[in-house]
Parts: sequence; C-alpha cells; structure tokens
Amino acid sequence: MTTDALVLDTAAQDLLFREARTANTFTEEPVSDEQIQAIYELVKFGPTALNQQPLRVVLVRSAEARERLVQHLSDGNKAKTAAAPLTAILAVDNEFHEELPTLFPHFPQAKDAFFSERPAREASAQMNGALQAGYFIIGVRAAGLAAGPMTGYDAEGINKEFFADGEHSVLAVVNIGKPGENAWYPRSPRLAYDQVVTTV
Amino acid sequence: MTTDALVLDTAAQDLLFREARTANTFTEEPVSDEQIQAIYELVKFGPTALNQQPLRVVLVRSAEARERLVQHLSDGNKAKTAAAPLTAILAVDNEFHEELPTLFPHFPQAKDAFFSERPAREASAQMNGALQAGYFIIGVRAAGLAAGPMTGYDAEGINKEFFADGEHSVLAVVNIGKPGENAWYPRSPRLAYDQVVTTV
Repeated sequence: MTTDALVLDTAAQDLLFREARTANTFTEEPVSDEQIQAIYELVKFGPTALNQQPLRVVLVRSAEARERLVQHLSDGNKAKTAAAPLTAILAVDNEFHEELPTLFPHFPQAKDAFFSERPAREASAQMNGALQAGYFIIGVRAAGLAAGPMTGYDAEGINKEFFADGEHSVLAVVNIGKPGENAWYPRSPRLAYDQVVTTV
Repeated sequence: MTTDALVLDTAAQDLLFREARTANTFTEEPVSDEQIQAIYELVKFGPTALNQQPLRVVLVRSAEARERLVQHLSDGNKAKTAAAPLTAILAVDNEFHEELPTLFPHFPQAKDAFFSERPAREASAQMNGALQAGYFIIGVRAAGLAAGPMTGYDAEGINKEFFADGEHSVLAVVNIGKPGENAWYPRSPRLAYDQVVTTV
C-alpha cells in the first residue's frame, strides 16, 4: 500500500473508504434528522460546476411513502429497502438554474448563458448531482453509518410518484443505517492502478 | 453547526470539506505518481453500480500533451491549467462492461443483460463515473492537495485529442497541486438544508 503518501489519518481512510461497505441489511437503530443534517452541513461544501448544487434529497420516513417507493424498485431491492431504518431518494432539480444568480454571484449571467435550454440543464444536473451523490455517500460514512446505494428501479415511476412537478429526476436510492447481520457480500475486485491511470 | 453528530474527526472534516477549496493557482511543488497512486488505492473502494468502475484518469505530464489539452479549454481555464503542477483528465470508458464479468462475479450476465446497447452504457458510465469523480476529488484532498475541477472545455475536442479509440468521454479536467497565492475566490453560498432535504 502506498497510502502513507496521504495526509488524511488512517482511521478516517478506513471509515470513509477502506472498511466502509455497501450494506444490504441494517440494525433497527433509527437514523435521526440531526444525523442527516450533520451529513448535509458537511458535504454541502463539495464543489460543483458554477456552484450549481442540483442535488435534492427526499427522506422516506412514513410507512405510506415507503410503500410507494418500494413498488418501483427492482425485486432484489424491495425487501432490504422495506426493512431499512431510513431510505433517501437522491434526485436532481432540473430547474436548479433558477438559484444560480444567488449561488454563483461572480457570473449571474450563467443562468441564461448556459442553461436556457432544458437538455443542457438535465445533462449538467446529472453530472453535478452524481458528484454530489458521491459526496453524500462519503458523508453517510462520516456519520458512522452504512449506505446502501441502489440504481435498480423504475426511474420514471419514482419521478412521477415523488416529483409531480416534472422538474426532478431520481439519481439513486440509498438505504441508510447501522449495518446488520451479514450486511455485505465479499468485497468485489477493483481495477488495478495501471488499468485506470495512464500518463501522457 | 450540527457536525458533532458525525464520527469523522474534525480535522478530517476540515481537510476534506470545510476548509478544502477549489484552487485556481498553485505553487510549483510537483505532484508525484506516488501521490496519485495513493489517492487511487484509497478511492477505488468507493461504490459504483454493479461495481462497474467506469472512471479512467489521464495524467497530463509532458509539455506537448499539456499544450494539446489547453487548446480545448475555455479561455478562463487556459492560463491556470498551463501553470498547474499536474492536470488530470477524468474520463469514462464506455466499454467498461467488458470488465464486468470479472468485476461483478455475483452476476456475470450483467454485461449482456444491461449493457449490450451503447446508449445504456454511456448513461451508466456518466452517472457512475461522476460518482467516482466525486471520490477522486475527495482523495486529492486526502493527500493534502487542492483540486481545481473544470468542465469548461470543448468535450468533443478533448475526446478526439486524447481518446482516439472513440470509446472514452471526458467528464472533467482537474488541476492538482498545493494552493498558491490568491488561490480561491470567497466561498460562494450553499443551499440551506431545508432547500435541499424534504421528508415524506
């Protein structure tokens, strides 16, 4: 390992990456709004292009909302989501550009210069929302919790069910909690450095 | 602040999110291959759907390659990139599915079941590559370095210039180094918790 070239302490490396795993079962210990707010107040600082911050998070807490969500998931994701202490729908607001004059005061014209067309907004929101989803998963782990991100679902179904305004697109659904019994499969292989990084 | 609900120590929170900033100037201190490998060996563990790992990284080290890159950047990104100690092109391999039988041994059929069509591969690579770009930016910060991610460029130009196989798509270009003088603008505002998170 060459991780001694890092400044981040080893315990934090383990917490966020090396020992953190995608969980498929959870204990019954609840996840509080305070924990989610603490996660947000940390990861909100992660960078996005033109500071656009398209990510939106829906916490699915009521039994009724959970049922509405689970029906749109792939079969393999239903039981674990029905049983998770908390499930978050990560989505993007495709009308994020309305906030840009406030969020990116250096260049208030960006809203109209880059984002007057919906397809340009959707592409940018997908890219930057996924960046923020990465930060969010790291933040869940920073709270000592396990994340179980999923993309196996009927996206159109979730969009219609939870975002009646037609302006949001689901990016991922994430179960959150303390890992339960047999929470994970053996770690799957990662690509080697030389398969991923080249130099020109 | 409600970050006392987090397990991650405060110094790590500051290093990765709270004090880390997008840098626009850098010192001349070089960034070594060992540092980049240490970053990769940490962030490779971040989760992707079906463990697909579509991210690929091109380190632009030669003067000739840097010139080839800079010509495709927006004017505002040219000078700072020409002067950065190291610039990385973050891209996705749209043929990532070829590795899936090895990377996701639980379900070797995933390659053909989900990814036989190029548009499905591109959409998945964009989403999961952006997640990994988020992890990579966090990893740069974990190495005590500043990242300067940019999406202002001619994407098609970069793809043709650096990925002649037609199978890769640039996601972001990231300058990497120790922050120099006047490295950043004042922090731009972040959306409030209540603007981002709702409960159902």
